[in-house]
Amino acid sequence: MSAHPRMVEVRQQILKKNDMIARALRERFHEAGVYVVSLVSSPGSGKTAFLEKTLGMLRERCRVAALVGDLATDNDARRLARSGAPVKQIITGTVCHLEAEMVRAALDGWRRPEELDFLFIENVGNLVCPAAFDLGQHRNVVLLSVTEGDDKPVKYPVMFRAADLVLISKSDLAPYIDDFDRGRAEHALRRIACAAPVFTLSARRCTALDPWLDWLRAMSAEARVPA
Amino acid sequence: MSAHPRMVEVRQQILKKNDMIARALRERFHEAGVYVVSLVSSPGSGKTAFLEKTLGMLRERCRVAALVGDLATDNDARRLARSGAPVKQIITGTVCHLEAEMVRAALDGWRRPEELDFLFIENVGNLVCPAAFDLGQHRNVVLLSVTEGDDKPVKYPVMFRAADLVLISKSDLAPYIDDFDRGRAEHALRRIACAAPVFTLSARRCTALDPWLDWLRAMSAEARVPA
Repeated sequence: MSAHPRMVEVRQQILKKNDMIARALRERFHEAGVYVVSLVSSPGSGKTAFLEKTLGMLRERCRVAALVGDLATDNDARRLARSGAPVKQIITGTVCHLEAEMVRAALDGWRRPEELDFLFIENVGNLVCPAAFDLGQHRNVVLLSVTEGDDKPVKYPVMFRAADLVLISKSDLAPYIDDFDRGRAEHALRRIACAAPVFTLSARRCTALDPWLDWLRAMSAEARVPA
Repeated sequence: MSAHPRMVEVRQQILKKNDMIARALRERFHEAGVYVVSLVSSPGSGKTAFLEKTLGMLRERCRVAALVGDLATDNDARRLARSGAPVKQIITGTVCHLEAEMVRAALDGWRRPEELDFLFIENVGNLVCPAAFDLGQHRNVVLLSVTEGDDKPVKYPVMFRAADLVLISKSDLAPYIDDFDRGRAEHALRRIACAAPVFTLSARRCTALDPWLDWLRAMSAEARVPA
């Protein structure tokens, strides 16, 4: 984002168009009965490891797929494909975030929403720019690894304020870290008016993943209840 | 950054103006005899801990100062001030990177370049957007913590390609990490045509900081040799 008046103006037009495409996507997802979750974090917070485990566990019982954004390389799609779930890479080039149109175009001719129960969208690793771009998802999950420090919510407030769930990742490294305290991280979240639940887990060690899966099931069941 | 044609156009004008301001800053820094180093990385890679140690060590012999960018809070400036060096926070609000004008404005009325031997500029934690904005610095240092994974250079190529020095940080955590290999990280850097030297260090444990200080002294001595 920029503070330049003309940039702000052009950006607002882009965001307006993005919101329209996202709204249409959200309606399509709702009609198709697919629950869509976006994942954001810093580079290297463990989004891909976490998503690989999640896809592997869910696909035993559900139809799952993932879209994954990166500036360059399809490394993440190849890693995620090890889960056995269908995965498609979105390469953004120099663009620092995913946009609704990229999601729409990636689904086109690949997977119909009706064929899926859950779709995960892993954004470019960036705690700033993805916050402004709605992708039509039902829920936002923000990961924060213990190695990043418990002060990150107050330093990147826009992203954490938009979180519906905060996952503290890489908990297996917590014993070796001096400057991460779960209480301080939660306090930082509440200070910026983020009321999201917080779960601590380690994707690498496959520990404490149940609260996340329970949350996902509860949220998706709720969304599918006819109004 | 964006792929939208009008955004690209406006952005090019902004970058052109930024480059002009950065060029003027660079000339001013050169005339004043201050050596300016920019630090970039993901959120939580340890830029601030590293800079705190660096300022503390350098200020015994040199006149040092730091500018530090964040979206919100002056936490980093307060941490860095413990080094005893003068430090000023630049709060960017929603802007995901520092710009030359922010650096110029922050120096104005605070420190004259002539009063300093070294000025460090710690950017907003972001591996994408800061790459495009020249701040008038002499050299770019990019940090990559062992916890982020050795694949980050190929996934964020623009930033790493612009590095004059790559510092692999948090080496004290390396024994607990499966997916970081120094050789693979270097291979990833060479693949994207980054020829920068690579040093591994731990700011927390104060280990292996000498190669960094030697590099800094050599670079700054070279820059000050009259043409």
